[in-house]
Amino acid sequence: MDQNSQTLSLRTPGAGLVDITSEVTAIVSEAGIANGMATLFIRHTSASLTIQENADPDVLSDLKDFFERIAPFTGPYRHSTEGPDDMPAHIKSALTATSLSIPIVSGRMVLGTWQGIYVFEHRTRPHDRDIIVHVMGQ
Amino acid sequence: MDQNSQTLSLRTPGAGLVDITSEVTAIVSEAGIANGMATLFIRHTSASLTIQENADPDVLSDLKDFFERIAPFTGPYRHSTEGPDDMPAHIKSALTATSLSIPIVSGRMVLGTWQGIYVFEHRTRPHDRDIIVHVMGQ
Amino acid sequence: MDQNSQTLSLRTPGAGLVDITSEVTAIVSEAGIANGMATLFIRHTSASLTIQENADPDVLSDLKDFFERIAPFTGPYRHSTEGPDDMPAHIKSALTATSLSIPIVSGRMVLGTWQGIYVFEHRTRPHDRDIIVHVMGQ
Repeated sequence: MDQNSQTLSLRTPGAGLVDITSEVTAIVSEAGIANGMATLFIRHTSASLTIQENADPDVLSDLKDFFERIAPFTGPYRHSTEGPDDMPAHIKSALTATSLSIPIVSGRMVLGTWQGIYVFEHRTRPHDRDIIVHVMGQ
Repeated sequence: MDQNSQTLSLRTPGAGLVDITSEVTAIVSEAGIANGMATLFIRHTSASLTIQENADPDVLSDLKDFFERIAPFTGPYRHSTEGPDDMPAHIKSALTATSLSIPIVSGRMVLGTWQGIYVFEHRTRPHDRDIIVHVMGQ
Repeated sequence: MDQNSQTLSLRTPGAGLVDITSEVTAIVSEAGIANGMATLFIRHTSASLTIQENADPDVLSDLKDFFERIAPFTGPYRHSTEGPDDMPAHIKSALTATSLSIPIVSGRMVLGTWQGIYVFEHRTRPHDRDIIVHVMGQ
């Protein structure tokens, strides 16, 4: 049983979903694990992880809009010192995933045909984000 | 340290929660792992996983209704080519879990007394769904 | 590859978020694992886990309020025999996490600077809650 941790760093362009499937696939491939588990962990509380449809980009826009409707900038919120987009960002993070686990079979993550892995940026402005990609297996 | 991956395939009867606790328990039991981790991953973006109360079936109906209220068929959504239930299904998937990790102690998953494992089908019509059940341990 | 499972038990003071970061850090530290994975699993369906900002306590109050707005005590719900706070508690659990996986690098969980690990109690009254902390690695 082997394991390996790498940090995937990226700068988001502001609120919305960023596809990181190919970057994670490359890390899993380099780890040389035939069977095991890939675990992703995002080190932030105003951006999160989600697995979503990778075919129609409208799905990503609709998702972003839905979360803006459900957790509007207008609140009401107590926490406002970091701007009107910060508390909604924490809520959206709580509603989605901070960690994801994806089994590896025959050297590949078992993602379905229509599944992509996304960083979901909830802040309005661009941010630097770090995701730990941990691979364990044989 | 041993590991094993199996695919649990089922056909859902349409929108709602399907209890897969006994199927997952059987896979964990057959793997012969005394202590370790069971990880479930669903290979879809319009159905998801959740751990919920297994006692009162009204809880499952109320859950389904809540998610229909929060992500109604009426949107507004851009993505509509796959039917009015498809974009709400992606939203409901983002709000629940694509992967779940359940420790195994003394040969059994550490589920609480009232916890069942469910596939949450978000599409209106029946669908074939695949869940990867990965077991790792000693 | 070594592993270890411990139960972290606590009594919540009623609805709200309880910081368990130091307790989990102590369990990971005692396990003596340099590199690997910590997985948390809560054995309940009316309390859940979340990773949130640990700096401004207003964030935790705003989070609690948001979930009360989105899943109000007034429903409508079929399931009401356990009190008006029970069905909302199941919904809030489905919307947040039952399990969390946090990589361990150089003996420490890779939590970001502003990340704390919380038990999110959704019932109004105090409850006894058990979280399984599983550590695996080398």
